[in-house]
Amino acid sequence: MSEQEAQELLLELKEKAELMVDLAYSSVIYNNKEIAKEVYELEDYVDNLNEELQKLAIKDAKAGELEVNEAIAIIQLGACSEAIADAARDIADVELRDVELHPIIRESILESDEVLIKVEVSPNSVLKDKKLGDVKLASHTGMWVIAIKRGKKWIYGADRNTIIKAGDILFVRGPREGVEHFIALARGEEKEI
Amino acid sequence: MSEQEAQELLLELKEKAELMVDLAYSSVIYNNKEIAKEVYELEDYVDNLNEELQKLAIKDAKAGELEVNEAIAIIQLGACSEAIADAARDIADVELRDVELHPIIRESILESDEVLIKVEVSPNSVLKDKKLGDVKLASHTGMWVIAIKRGKKWIYGADRNTIIKAGDILFVRGPREGVEHFIALARGEEKEI
Repeated sequence: MSEQEAQELLLELKEKAELMVDLAYSSVIYNNKEIAKEVYELEDYVDNLNEELQKLAIKDAKAGELEVNEAIAIIQLGACSEAIADAARDIADVELRDVELHPIIRESILESDEVLIKVEVSPNSVLKDKKLGDVKLASHTGMWVIAIKRGKKWIYGADRNTIIKAGDILFVRGPREGVEHFIALARGEEKEI
Repeated sequence: MSEQEAQELLLELKEKAELMVDLAYSSVIYNNKEIAKEVYELEDYVDNLNEELQKLAIKDAKAGELEVNEAIAIIQLGACSEAIADAARDIADVELRDVELHPIIRESILESDEVLIKVEVSPNSVLKDKKLGDVKLASHTGMWVIAIKRGKKWIYGADRNTIIKAGDILFVRGPREGVEHFIALARGEEKEI
């Protein structure tokens, strides 16, 4: 049965496209070409997902498992995610050009109600050696970990099973009002999540 | 001095485009044509903002206040936000067509780690008559209010000064793990934010 498959593909497309937008803005704010390059790689990945989804929708429509209108709606939603992914790649592109950006650009992103921050996890942080799912950062602080730099390695799109280590550099998205508390947790200055 | 203006325009473009994506997905999940129409209206607004930004960037480049490369980067970021806004309009379009959507579509959106929920504020909710900024919902629960239906009126893009009323129907985006707590707060079953 391919319904499950179509649903998973649509979901992954949506989530990857949104992750790419966060990563792309982070690359611009933190002047980070590595993150910008990751956005490019994700864009290829999203293209492939979308192609798979289109084929599946047509196959299901042919087999009578989907109405033609439903197949069209699914294809259109996939195309929308791909358009968002393309926009993210174009944002990353601004970073990848070797142009010193005017402060207007970084400030306009940093002024958002939802901001992107970068913070290192201290050895005495309560977050150390904890699973993201266990500390429930998202529901307690409003902050989402979108990328982790661990030594030379990058982890993008961390999930509830990702373990936070001392020395990790976290790239996090969240409400301006939650930033201070989150930074204090990462630095070990605040123990209560 | 127009730097401030360019910065505000870029920021508003970014925020409105992201709000539109949330609203567009909400319209699909909740089968709500009113929200979908609001996305269409916001799209016109975003087009106008982007036009203003382009003119300003060119004017500043001419006046020597911006390097040509900087003006290009600003125009490109504006274009990216507009592309995201266009994608959001196309998502809303899926809702506006009179097609009964296959459950695959709603479920694929609902399965996200970040979900969109709809909940009514009870007269004995702790949220009643509070300013959004005062209850710090975003940093305490991870949930963002993206739209409020109050009687026949809609409030989109509520800010910290928006006061929550009993009977409000809140459309909220946030982490799956924060949903239960948020719903309990809105319904008055839980008093501690």
